[in-house]
Parts: sequence; C-alpha cells; structure tokens
Amino acid sequence: MGEYADLKHIMNPRSVAIIGASQNPEKVGHVILQNYFDVGYSGKLFPVNNSYEGRILGLPVYKSVLDIKSGVDLAVIAIPAEHVAEVLTECGKAHVKGVVIVSSGFSEVGETERQEKITEISKKYGMPVIGPNCLGVMDMRSRIDTMYLPTFKLDKPKIGSVSFASQSGAVGSLILDVISHEGFGLSKFISYGNAAVVDETDILNYLAYDKDTKIIVFYIEGAKRGKEFIDVAKKATKIKPVIIIKGGKTSAGASAAHSHTAALAGSAEAYDAVFKQFGFVEAEDMDELIAYAKIFDTQPLTTGNRIGMITNGGGMGVLATDAIYKNGLVMAELSEESKKVLKGSMPPIVNIRLPLDIGGDADDKRFAAALDTVSSDPNVDALIVITLFQTPGADSRVASMLIHRSMESKKPIVVISPGGSYTQVHKDMMESSGVPVYDSEDLAAKSLKALIDYSKYKNRMI
Amino acid sequence: MGEYADLKHIMNPRSVAIIGASQNPEKVGHVILQNYFDVGYSGKLFPVNNSYEGRILGLPVYKSVLDIKSGVDLAVIAIPAEHVAEVLTECGKAHVKGVVIVSSGFSEVGETERQEKITEISKKYGMPVIGPNCLGVMDMRSRIDTMYLPTFKLDKPKIGSVSFASQSGAVGSLILDVISHEGFGLSKFISYGNAAVVDETDILNYLAYDKDTKIIVFYIEGAKRGKEFIDVAKKATKIKPVIIIKGGKTSAGASAAHSHTAALAGSAEAYDAVFKQFGFVEAEDMDELIAYAKIFDTQPLTTGNRIGMITNGGGMGVLATDAIYKNGLVMAELSEESKKVLKGSMPPIVNIRLPLDIGGDADDKRFAAALDTVSSDPNVDALIVITLFQTPGADSRVASMLIHRSMESKKPIVVISPGGSYTQVHKDMMESSGVPVYDSEDLAAKSLKALIDYSKYKNRMI
Repeated sequence: MGEYADLKHIMNPRSVAIIGASQNPEKVGHVILQNYFDVGYSGKLFPVNNSYEGRILGLPVYKSVLDIKSGVDLAVIAIPAEHVAEVLTECGKAHVKGVVIVSSGFSEVGETERQEKITEISKKYGMPVIGPNCLGVMDMRSRIDTMYLPTFKLDKPKIGSVSFASQSGAVGSLILDVISHEGFGLSKFISYGNAAVVDETDILNYLAYDKDTKIIVFYIEGAKRGKEFIDVAKKATKIKPVIIIKGGKTSAGASAAHSHTAALAGSAEAYDAVFKQFGFVEAEDMDELIAYAKIFDTQPLTTGNRIGMITNGGGMGVLATDAIYKNGLVMAELSEESKKVLKGSMPPIVNIRLPLDIGGDADDKRFAAALDTVSSDPNVDALIVITLFQTPGADSRVASMLIHRSMESKKPIVVISPGGSYTQVHKDMMESSGVPVYDSEDLAAKSLKALIDYSKYKNRMI
Repeated sequence: MGEYADLKHIMNPRSVAIIGASQNPEKVGHVILQNYFDVGYSGKLFPVNNSYEGRILGLPVYKSVLDIKSGVDLAVIAIPAEHVAEVLTECGKAHVKGVVIVSSGFSEVGETERQEKITEISKKYGMPVIGPNCLGVMDMRSRIDTMYLPTFKLDKPKIGSVSFASQSGAVGSLILDVISHEGFGLSKFISYGNAAVVDETDILNYLAYDKDTKIIVFYIEGAKRGKEFIDVAKKATKIKPVIIIKGGKTSAGASAAHSHTAALAGSAEAYDAVFKQFGFVEAEDMDELIAYAKIFDTQPLTTGNRIGMITNGGGMGVLATDAIYKNGLVMAELSEESKKVLKGSMPPIVNIRLPLDIGGDADDKRFAAALDTVSSDPNVDALIVITLFQTPGADSRVASMLIHRSMESKKPIVVISPGGSYTQVHKDMMESSGVPVYDSEDLAAKSLKALIDYSKYKNRMI
C-alpha cells in the first residue's frame, strides 16, 4: 500500500459495488445506491445483497462481490457490523481496490477486536479502507457519493476547490450543509470515522497532491501517527492552505472525543504548537472555520497587514477599527496622492482619513470612487468594505460593483454586511460570486489575519 | 428638567409636529410623516413647513409650531442645520415638551458652536432634545417612528421587551434589522447621535425605569458624564440586564469614533473596569451583542455553571464541551438516579455520560426523554441541546418539542443548530417561539456565561 494509502480508486472509481444494497427506500443501502443515480455517476454500479434476488433500481443484484467478474474499484459496505469482516475478506479476494465501511458498531462502542480484524484484513490484501463508523466520501467531479443522509435536509454544494475531511460524520455533514448554503464550491468530502486503516495522515497526503483541491479544511479529534502527520503537514501547508479545527482541546472535550471516536486527543499545547510551527491555519470554533475557508477560497494572499477601510456607517467603522487592532492588524495611512484624489471625488462632508466614512447616502458611484482610490494606494495591503444595506444609498448596484472590483483586485477585499432579509439577498449575491461577506467585524478581521499569517509562513518556506 | 431628562413626552407623545414635512416622497420630512401613518400612530399629527402651502398626506400644513394652537408634545426637526436653532427657539416658545433633531451638520463636521447653540436653547426652555445627527426614536407601543430609513431595506420587529439605544445611527439601524430578522421583540429604539442635550446617562436612566423594557442593549462610543453614568448604571443593572458594546476601545478605534460623533472615548481599561464592576453585560463584537440579547430576552437567570449537554452529533458535542470549558463553565455530573433512568430510556448504543450523545437517528421522543431527565437532574443548572437537523432523526417534531420544553423550563436552555436552508426553517421556528438558537458553539457558551455572571452579580446586589 506504500507509505500512505492511495485513495484514487476510492475517490475516482470506474466501478462501485454497494454491499447491503436494498430495495427498501428507507434503508441506508438503498439511499447510497440512489445517490449514484442522483449525482450522475457514469461508471458501473453493482448492488450486492446475499439475501435478495432480482433487481434494485433496475440493476441486477449480486450475492457477493466475488460474483462480479468485470472487477470492482470501490466497494461500499453498509451491513450490520458483525458481518463486515467476512464481506471485507471477499472484497480482498475479489481484488477490490478500495473500500468504504459506513457501518457502525466497532471501537466507538468498545468493539476494538472487531475493528482490529478490519485493519488486519485491509493489510493482508493491501486494500485501503475508509471507516468504519463514517459517512464516507463525496467527489464533485468523479460524482461519487456514499453519504446516507436525507438529501432534502442538506443544501447541495456547487463544484469548487475546497476539500473537507472530518473524523466526525455529524460535523462533516453540517459543514457540508453550511458551506453549500454560503455558496462555496466543494471538491471532495471525506468522513473517515474510526480510521481503522485510512487515517488523517493518509487523507492529508492525498488532498495535498490532489490538483482539484485548492484549500483543505480538516476536523480532527487526534492524529494516530503523530510523526507521519507532521511529515505530511510540512509538505501540505507549503502547497496549499490547511485550515484545521481540533476537537477535544480541553480535557473534558478530550474525554468526550474518546467516547465518540475512541481518539487519543493529546494535549492542547502540543497540538497548538504543531499547528503553529507547521503552517496550519487553526480555527478555534466552527464560525472561524467557515470564515477562514471563505477568505482562502476567494482571495489572493498578501503578507502586508495595512488595512484600507471604507464604510457607509460610522459606528461600524469604529467597531471594525477596534477589531483589526485587537487582531494584530493596523489601519493603513493614505498616501498624499490618494488624499488629493479623494478630496476631489468625495462630498465635502467626508473626512479624508481611514476608516473612510463615505456616509449613509453613499451610492455605487461613491463606493466605486472610494474603493478605486483606496485599493490602488501603495500603503494599503488589504481592504475591508463595510456595506450597510439598511442605508438609503446601498442597493444591488453597490453589490454588483463590489463583485466586479473584487474579481479584478490583486489585493484581498472582504465585505462586512450584517442585516436581515434585504441584506441577505445581497450577501447571497456577493458570496455566490466569490466575494467573502461577514456579519461580524471580528470574524472579518480574524479572517484577514489568518490569510496574512499563512501568506507570511508560505513566503518564509519558499 | 431635573437631574435626568424626562423622555416620556418624546417616547409617548399625544401630538407630534414634523418640522420640515415635505410633499416630496423622496425627502426625509415626507418619510417621517408617512411613518406615522404606516405604524398606526393615534395621536395628532402636524406637518410644519414655512415655504409650502396646502396639505401633505391630507393634513393641513403649518408655517411654524407657534401656529399650532392645541399644543405639541413632540417636535421632529428635519431641516438644514443652519435653520435648526431658529426653529428650536420657536419650539421652546410654543412649549413643545420634547424634540428630536435628525438633521446633521453639527459637531460631527466641526460645527461645535452651532451645536452649543442647541444645548443652550434646550436649557433655556427646559426642553429635552435628542440629536442632532441621529435617526431618532421608535416605540413599538406608542407607535412613534422618526426614522427616515427606506423601510423595505429593514425587517420589521415584533412588539417585545428589548430596548435598544445607540449613538450611531448605522449601528442602530443594522441591529434593528438583525434583531427583527432573528425574531426578537422590540420595545423602544433610541438613536441619539451627537447627544447635544439628552445623552447616554439620561437614556439609561429612562430605560431602567421603563416598565415595557426588560433588557437594555446599548452601543456607546463614550459617556459624556462619567460619574452620573455610573450612578445611574448602579441602579439600572440591579433592575434589569444592560448589554453594552463600546466602540473605540483601541486608540485607533477611539480616533475613528472622535471623527464620527466627536465622542471622547476614554481608555479601554477604564471602561472595562466600570462595566465589570457595575454589572454590565459587555459584548466584544456585534455577534456577541446579538447573542447576549437573545439569551437574556428569553431565558431565566441562574447562578449555577454546571451544564447538561445533549447532542445528536458526537463531534459537535466535543467542540461544545471545549467551548464551555474555555468560557469558564463546567460539564455537570449526572446523578445516579438520572443515569438509571437514561439507561432505561436510551438505546444501548448511547453512552450514559455528559455530553449525552443520543445518536444521529435520535427522533423527538428520544430527544424528549433525554431532555426531561437531564433538565430535572439537580446537578444540572443550564442546558445546551445540540440539534443537528442534517441527521436522519431530527425534524420539525424535534423543534416543536424543544419549543414546548423551553416554555416550561425553569432552567436556561440554549440550542446549537448550524446549517443551511432546512436548518434555517427550524431555527426561525424556534427563535420566533422564544428558544435561543446559535450557529456557533462558542457564542452559545459565551451567552450562557454572560447570563450566569449577570445572575451572580444581581444576587450579590440584592
């Protein structure tokens, strides 16, 4: 299997066997098979069920993978835990190239022997296995989807470049739901559960070299192979940003994590030190994780921390100024040239200094004039544009202008727009066009800080 | 005028004059007059305009407040800054009982003399004045509304018990929009701008004794009368929670605040110390402000910090456990009795410990059984219920059950439910029924901490 598991046959299989496929639409084995039709998978599909004869969703059913003569790249196992080992052995004998076990009932409920058996069989046949006790995998390009969640409960992501891996299925599914809702594009999703075989190190290694993945987002409760994890991380964070959240950083959290996926959580200090030293972008909670993914997915890197801030509401400018300083960033000083231009283009009531408060009556033209001058100022490294859609001047023309300027900009631009329904429409409009929009001045500032810190790390490493 | 300005004629006037009323629907003076029709104000309305004859919105127009013989409780002034002093003097002569000046062009643009004139006239006639450079006031019960923002851009609040005051009009309007969107009920809204006369101390005093206000939420950039502010605060925080956010806590932020409302911001340390000592609930950013308002508006106080946590997703339980410990709370220990009951009511796969992970297949019955046992445990002071609607078991029945249990509970209950569209529907359902729902485990934990800290402060003070 080499040093790290090769997941290519799992993520991009030419043929998939669903072991435990069922004709009952309420069963996991049916939902998974149905998924492949829904997402438009174009490889071969083989339902496997040893106690059902006939067809499921129009496909002939096999008693065992051993009966499939044309070969199987990926087997998805969704049967009761006690029969998994036997079926996995059949997969090995049938030269299946990769397996996802969604069944639970292994070390997470104290059945460690049952799980060790899985590890053993995988090794014997050199066959990578994801799971057990996991949701499995999704790949937006190869169109595989082993997730058995009710699809009407989750928003659907668009195809993109963020890949997400999670030990926890629940965290995985809710992040999938949130990133879809926020308009991100997804590349790959891997929920790896108990990690009997394929672990966080294998996955990090795979995603680091995956050309369709621009950003890696990771939820871990612990790393099974600490040294190897660090070896891989060193390379991965040089190639692309790895945003990580660690569950079980407090001792009570660690104890909850142990009961959850039987993970050995390790000390918070040890992980913090590793994350910092090896260039991870660490999120302290779920809000930060989403906020960071948003900025890395859309904005260029920059090593400078001088912020140019434009606002159409004075008070939010004050709060956002506090937020950038609390997070180690500074307000840029406008060049004399910029000041001169702004004096000509802004109404007399506008005070020519940053944060540039362009007034509640600012429309798209005034926003554009301010943004063009501030963003081209050599003293400005990145921009925060506070756009309060509650004001008389701000409307869809302002949002459209921000989308256009953001596409052309070589400096990072983030928008702060808290609000209700009218604001949400514009937030969706901007986010689906690649403009990162934040409700909170603190998350906007933290996201810029994370981007700048990672840019500096990457610069040092090259 | 007494020690503190009496705002009762401003907030609950029997008659209102709109000075600067216009027949042009695009003018501020028209929008404000129209508001009174829209919200169903039942007192007398007098449009005043010295250069227009005829009727506006069907009402006869007066040349001056002096011409209104039946008396005016509240005058709203929306005319160019240079004419405000003259009109304000007329208000004084006409025995107007309170004034709101929405016009800008005073000390915020360096016109300090012009503003001092306002203060002088107010004093001469003993007539409280709100503003200038403000949005003015809203009262959901007396149905007054001097705000001139485009109404289609802001969600409308329901009648409730949260009152909100803000120096900044923009912060005020966006919070109004957000709290409406999140389903809160509003009592009063006061945007007081430059505070030429009525300042934060007057407003805090007024809201402290206002029987329709259960929670006070305050955005300030500085307190003009430090000693008086503390005197009032001491009493106010004993009566009801005062949630406060201070703009200009960093020196750069303070400088931005000065250019915004000419506020003297004072040192961050001084304000922090005052807020802590006198029982304020301080929010560090806008997200915290909304999160805290949500829990205080709906949940009972408690001085205990032992959290009972129930989750239908293991990983979120781990993260939320970390979050409570990071914020100085602890996980409760279940009593032997509770453990026995849960062993009987939960499926065997559920580990009987907190956080209680009831599984992704948990439905409303299992949620209810878990919640009933954990909430009645004497070792539990407050509850966090993580409800991931992405899972197969969680649906509207779970949300309904949580609404019912929340209404009956004597202990605080907060829900964590991050997610996309399907989750949002249930979030809206729960929030509009008084259940505080959070996207972020960190904000949920911080909100409980704020509630507990305030409860302890109040207990000590009684």
